[in-house]
Amino acid sequence: MKFSAPQRLSDLANLTSSRIIGDEHKLVLGINEIHKVEEGDITFVDHPKYYDKALNSAATFVIINKEVPVPEGKALLFHSDPFSVYVGIVKHFRPFQPSEKRISDSAVIGAGTVIQPGAFIGNHVKIGSNCVIHANVSIYDHSEIGNNCVIHSNTVIGADAFYFKRRPDHYDKMLSCGRVIIHDNVELGACCTIDKGVSSDTIIGSGTKLDNHIHVGHDTVIGKNCLFAAQVGIAGVVTIEDDVILWGQVGVQKDLTIGKGAVVLGQSGVGKTLEGGKTYFGSPTQDARQKMKEMAMVKQLPEIFEKLKAI
Amino acid sequence: MKFSAPQRLSDLANLTSSRIIGDEHKLVLGINEIHKVEEGDITFVDHPKYYDKALNSAATFVIINKEVPVPEGKALLFHSDPFSVYVGIVKHFRPFQPSEKRISDSAVIGAGTVIQPGAFIGNHVKIGSNCVIHANVSIYDHSEIGNNCVIHSNTVIGADAFYFKRRPDHYDKMLSCGRVIIHDNVELGACCTIDKGVSSDTIIGSGTKLDNHIHVGHDTVIGKNCLFAAQVGIAGVVTIEDDVILWGQVGVQKDLTIGKGAVVLGQSGVGKTLEGGKTYFGSPTQDARQKMKEMAMVKQLPEIFEKLKAI
Amino acid sequence: MKFSAPQRLSDLANLTSSRIIGDEHKLVLGINEIHKVEEGDITFVDHPKYYDKALNSAATFVIINKEVPVPEGKALLFHSDPFSVYVGIVKHFRPFQPSEKRISDSAVIGAGTVIQPGAFIGNHVKIGSNCVIHANVSIYDHSEIGNNCVIHSNTVIGADAFYFKRRPDHYDKMLSCGRVIIHDNVELGACCTIDKGVSSDTIIGSGTKLDNHIHVGHDTVIGKNCLFAAQVGIAGVVTIEDDVILWGQVGVQKDLTIGKGAVVLGQSGVGKTLEGGKTYFGSPTQDARQKMKEMAMVKQLPEIFEKLKAI
Repeated sequence: MKFSAPQRLSDLANLTSSRIIGDEHKLVLGINEIHKVEEGDITFVDHPKYYDKALNSAATFVIINKEVPVPEGKALLFHSDPFSVYVGIVKHFRPFQPSEKRISDSAVIGAGTVIQPGAFIGNHVKIGSNCVIHANVSIYDHSEIGNNCVIHSNTVIGADAFYFKRRPDHYDKMLSCGRVIIHDNVELGACCTIDKGVSSDTIIGSGTKLDNHIHVGHDTVIGKNCLFAAQVGIAGVVTIEDDVILWGQVGVQKDLTIGKGAVVLGQSGVGKTLEGGKTYFGSPTQDARQKMKEMAMVKQLPEIFEKLKAI
Repeated sequence: MKFSAPQRLSDLANLTSSRIIGDEHKLVLGINEIHKVEEGDITFVDHPKYYDKALNSAATFVIINKEVPVPEGKALLFHSDPFSVYVGIVKHFRPFQPSEKRISDSAVIGAGTVIQPGAFIGNHVKIGSNCVIHANVSIYDHSEIGNNCVIHSNTVIGADAFYFKRRPDHYDKMLSCGRVIIHDNVELGACCTIDKGVSSDTIIGSGTKLDNHIHVGHDTVIGKNCLFAAQVGIAGVVTIEDDVILWGQVGVQKDLTIGKGAVVLGQSGVGKTLEGGKTYFGSPTQDARQKMKEMAMVKQLPEIFEKLKAI
Repeated sequence: MKFSAPQRLSDLANLTSSRIIGDEHKLVLGINEIHKVEEGDITFVDHPKYYDKALNSAATFVIINKEVPVPEGKALLFHSDPFSVYVGIVKHFRPFQPSEKRISDSAVIGAGTVIQPGAFIGNHVKIGSNCVIHANVSIYDHSEIGNNCVIHSNTVIGADAFYFKRRPDHYDKMLSCGRVIIHDNVELGACCTIDKGVSSDTIIGSGTKLDNHIHVGHDTVIGKNCLFAAQVGIAGVVTIEDDVILWGQVGVQKDLTIGKGAVVLGQSGVGKTLEGGKTYFGSPTQDARQKMKEMAMVKQLPEIFEKLKAI
């Protein structure tokens, strides 16, 4: 998330009772989790395993729980609990705003767009022209939808990222400040859920069509003209390139890429990055033909057993 | 879909700028996609691979992109893009009607039926007597529900078919003009989706019970007294006969039949027609006992490897 | 379910046209299905296979279709159709109450709790303080939610148990009189369904977090600080102990236990009780490392085939 105006690092330090190490005069442009951080942003790190990654990332500011040398051109915020500092900043700049009305006065809705009864349109939502938002759809604050989109009933756009930090005796919630951005000519089936980015945007590219009961996790970026069949589940921070086809009930794990034009057959489980232009099957996925061969061989096992007995 | 009154072929030709080949005086009774076409209907074909199928189908009228001899007793509509002609006719006769109210004035609701708060009842919906439609259910236009049915919260009845035509740089939507028909004594769990037929009807037979999160695709026909456990997904144009039991998370591919009394165990994937009266397991499904044997043999592979090493 | 006041057995006999065998002066405290029955409760049995289990259960009263000796300290209700007697009692003491309003006047909602537009709050629902109930959530009658909970949009709490009795030509519904109880600091994602107990309570322990599209069946009891990823499905009468992690699309069959701290990898199917503290994979689940080994061996099958050919 970019702040609506640049923030003084010293103000963030005061807000969160943390201590500046380095140049306190720099202005902070936004806040992002490490996967999506950009120059001018502040991010956080609290585990020695990731110190180097965070300090060498694009982030200009790092909230950290160890006093380390300040990298060139950057500044640090020191605090014993960087996660809480990060969440505190998010809470301050993107507080939850209860809605008084079913369609927020701050929502911007384009010409020719139909909002059916029972649909909820949150604060600062933008919807383009000639869309149909069907009955009982829920669109959380700050979501953006392009032109000529159809969102079927009871679909939920912009619910919070499923992202929690393990503490000794409970989980702490990572507050989400990202958005959902849906481009033009997208159709989402009924009872889908597209979570907002935890700090960046979850994006669905133009012309992509989703069937019913599909889950898209936080910060996942989906290309153009993809087709996903019913009950597909895609975790967070996934990249799906253009023209990908996922058949029904496919599951996709977090933080991987599915290349342009890949086809994944039904009920498969994608556990690592897949090259484009190929067809995959299985849980975990393999090349579909290879998987079919394996399954044929398993069927021949009784014969092998007989042969071995005879030896 | 049958038209509310028979239509002159010449009017359809004018509406869609297409050209009649054959007898222009015949009356067109309805419009249907090739899977569900009946005598008196108009259908379309745009790929040489399917010309013969369409021309020899029950359809009395075929929209086609090649000048071919007119089959006995039929007539053709010639156009370079039959898909667009078909969609144009659907759009004309079954345009999307936005709803002003949560419960449409044109809906017919039987005695003793309870509509809970937040439920959306579209135009021309019919609901029988002694039903309960729970909170935040969404029922699209033209759906029909029998007597003594229970529809649990946030279920969606009659969303559009997931049916798109690939064009060089985008997908074109096949507009749906079919319906959902639910017979008596059916119970649907929460967060289910029953899509309307693309041109015909999606049907759920009497006494059938669905658990939560179940997807039923367009034009699928389900028999009587079936039981489907949670998160089952059934594609379009499937026939499921009476007394079929599908356990949780089963997936069923399109355009196949599951025979009477078949049982499919949890997480299985049905990829082809299954004979009735048997139990199945696996993805893709096999006879359940056969599959169990295979899995037992896979567990013996270490032993085989040892034996082979010794040879 | 406990009755709001103890009931005379003779009144229940009159209500259901059944006949008392044994001491008619005892008071009945509640009604429960056999899995959850307690002392003072009435339960039912209608199959010889389960007579002994029911008669020796904690139940003080048993509705039965055979004249048997009355166990010490108990009493029986004789009827040819015990299931109907049981359902008749449930219907009398927990009749369905249609809701006139979106938020029932009998609901009790704590300080600082936000109810977003379109959320339905049924009769006698209790919600603690500082919760957020997002748009178009549906909460059925008698559900209870603790403090600091977040329920995301279009989630359904308290729909009926999926529990039917097979009759010769149809299914009869087991009416649900149980509740959903959600403890403090729970977060439920969007489009989840938590069914009420059929006669007891479905419980989600404090600090547990559910992603989207998750199904939790009737009478299932989930411990503290569990994490379930999207599209997990859990059947009825399951016990999940504390700190269990279920990855995406895992399915769990009914009437089993998953031990404390167990981890089940994505798309696995849990078919029997799992010991805590271990990691599982597969459908049905095995120890994850064992399963990985098996899969590696299957990949070596072509090599084995070659070796065998050479023999």
